[in-house]
Amino acid sequence: MLNLAELTTPYLLLDPVKMERNIARLQKHMDKLGVTLRPHVKTAKSIDVVRRLFADGKGPITVSTLKEAEYFAEHGFTDITYAVGISPDKLPRVVELLRMGVTLRVLVDSMAQAQAVVKAAAQLGHKIPALIEIDCDGERAGLSKNDPKIVEIGRYLHENGEFCGILMHAGGSYHCPDKAAKEAAAEHERATAVAVRDQLVAAGVPCPIVSVGSTPTAHFAEDLTGVTEMRAGVYVFQDLVMAGLHVCELQDIAISVVATVIGHRPEKGWIMTDAGWMALSRDRGTAQQEVDQGYGLVCAMDGTPYQDLIVSSTSQEHGIVSVRKGSKAKLPKLEVGQQVRILPNHACATASQFEGYVVPTADELVFWPRINYW
Amino acid sequence: MLNLAELTTPYLLLDPVKMERNIARLQKHMDKLGVTLRPHVKTAKSIDVVRRLFADGKGPITVSTLKEAEYFAEHGFTDITYAVGISPDKLPRVVELLRMGVTLRVLVDSMAQAQAVVKAAAQLGHKIPALIEIDCDGERAGLSKNDPKIVEIGRYLHENGEFCGILMHAGGSYHCPDKAAKEAAAEHERATAVAVRDQLVAAGVPCPIVSVGSTPTAHFAEDLTGVTEMRAGVYVFQDLVMAGLHVCELQDIAISVVATVIGHRPEKGWIMTDAGWMALSRDRGTAQQEVDQGYGLVCAMDGTPYQDLIVSSTSQEHGIVSVRKGSKAKLPKLEVGQQVRILPNHACATASQFEGYVVPTADELVFWPRINYW
Repeated sequence: MLNLAELTTPYLLLDPVKMERNIARLQKHMDKLGVTLRPHVKTAKSIDVVRRLFADGKGPITVSTLKEAEYFAEHGFTDITYAVGISPDKLPRVVELLRMGVTLRVLVDSMAQAQAVVKAAAQLGHKIPALIEIDCDGERAGLSKNDPKIVEIGRYLHENGEFCGILMHAGGSYHCPDKAAKEAAAEHERATAVAVRDQLVAAGVPCPIVSVGSTPTAHFAEDLTGVTEMRAGVYVFQDLVMAGLHVCELQDIAISVVATVIGHRPEKGWIMTDAGWMALSRDRGTAQQEVDQGYGLVCAMDGTPYQDLIVSSTSQEHGIVSVRKGSKAKLPKLEVGQQVRILPNHACATASQFEGYVVPTADELVFWPRINYW
Repeated sequence: MLNLAELTTPYLLLDPVKMERNIARLQKHMDKLGVTLRPHVKTAKSIDVVRRLFADGKGPITVSTLKEAEYFAEHGFTDITYAVGISPDKLPRVVELLRMGVTLRVLVDSMAQAQAVVKAAAQLGHKIPALIEIDCDGERAGLSKNDPKIVEIGRYLHENGEFCGILMHAGGSYHCPDKAAKEAAAEHERATAVAVRDQLVAAGVPCPIVSVGSTPTAHFAEDLTGVTEMRAGVYVFQDLVMAGLHVCELQDIAISVVATVIGHRPEKGWIMTDAGWMALSRDRGTAQQEVDQGYGLVCAMDGTPYQDLIVSSTSQEHGIVSVRKGSKAKLPKLEVGQQVRILPNHACATASQFEGYVVPTADELVFWPRINYW
């Protein structure tokens, strides 16, 4: 139990009511579409958050690091997909988890990786379940829809290892502020996945898992026929990038950095705080959006945003707060020692700067630790 | 002791030979100018690094967080300056350290802060030594040279508390690629500091400490008459921003992120690695420089940079490596599983993404932990 009077800033505040609402919203949508939700725990990296994602507390999850996989396995999670292309150096740690009884699936998009997986499985004495990564929008990793390597690798894994299916991530949906564009991105993701599955099945390679996901497409999908699971992470907390994409409202954002005013430069229109890039991260995800929120949008401690007040510049432990360029809003009067809450551009990046979450529950203030690093 | 074969990427590699050379270089320059070096430990945040900065292992240091102050105090450091403007919430932790016998100086640039310091000293029963922050180039916090508040606050602290002197940071020197401009920034920093000290002394307020510092001005100062101490942090490791400013050479950069190739997109000219922004940080400090190094410059494991090969884009655990736009360099052939070293834009930001340093010494591979968070 924490004592609010003893907390020094900056710290990361988590509103559990907003979080529960965000969780329920997407779960309800997935239930309606009849698709399993496999949350990406890379955003929260906290057992206290992740157990709240599932009715039974230990549902299927997606991880971005083996450290997450190991931590959640220790906490009883047994159905884990590691959604970053595998490299050979990591396979001994993967097999350790498989030996513990955890179904940990790895991701490949090349024959070299598939061969490394098969070789390591033989050497380490345990089959390693694998998915093939598919690219649907040219944003990152994966094989393109019609690449013959998909069937080639799928067959190789099916015959020599344990082939589970395909996985893709519609990263392009992060550039779709329009509702119709997000819906189209979701349908494109679905259709691409189903087409790839059909290629595999037609070639005699069973493809039980058809995994898609991104927070925008998860919320805007209207039909997920053929998809077996949806992955999303940011939806648990939401952030300014998601608000800018109209995936959520500002008031849905469940985490904020609490900062203290440490000075003023009235001649420059600046308020100085103790939340610099070390606390906020360097993420400037809204810089490409219609409304640039700087390094974060500044709110009163009750969560109400000050009009057009953003963190316009940061150094390691300094944040310069000012009115957004072009706005006629007045700089609020904030005294030295006064606290503010800063909404983050990107929940994953800002949360990763902290050891954990300060959470006001009904009875007490508690601390929920995170599992950072690798 | 670590086993190289058991390390999984990404990890942060520290070359102790380069580091020692960087340390010796600036120390020698300060010795020549007759000024005490008070290293800023916010870059390294590691006792194993910081004890190598001093002949006796426990010299004067600068910190950016109270957690650093507490950690280094536990390790025997007793002369610490906390170089971020103080807020009242932090004063109980400051007094805890003072009671332990640590001389921990705080920073103010307003009468409100000075009054909070004096009030907390009375309430908590211990004098709190304080410095006034001066601004010399409009980059961040501090009072401007001729602001009458300097003498007013100095006198108030001298009469009611413990006034130690003045502190400034020539952040503007980060925009000075030219040698002459860096020399001018250093001289401007010095001259401003001395002029402010003279104002205080003329008003009957003793000003024993005249503290200046930034890595560029520390290296390019030619005369520091009147200055009592120099602060710098990045110099210990150096980074791409410093190389871009011609403060160091590429081969002086002592830290790099070791990453593994996890895939290819030949049609896009991409090599995928497992070092995304979580490992490299989102810092894009070279974006405003003559040569934009993306999220980092890619080198072979022996430290030799590949020609114009940079991390051009990142997501949380993915780094996209490609040839810098406009370059005619060929994409090197890097196989899945092969490792590379990535030089960081900003040593403070990249190092802060890691739990510690992997350090190859003459006999063994060791791990030096960091003290992150607040």
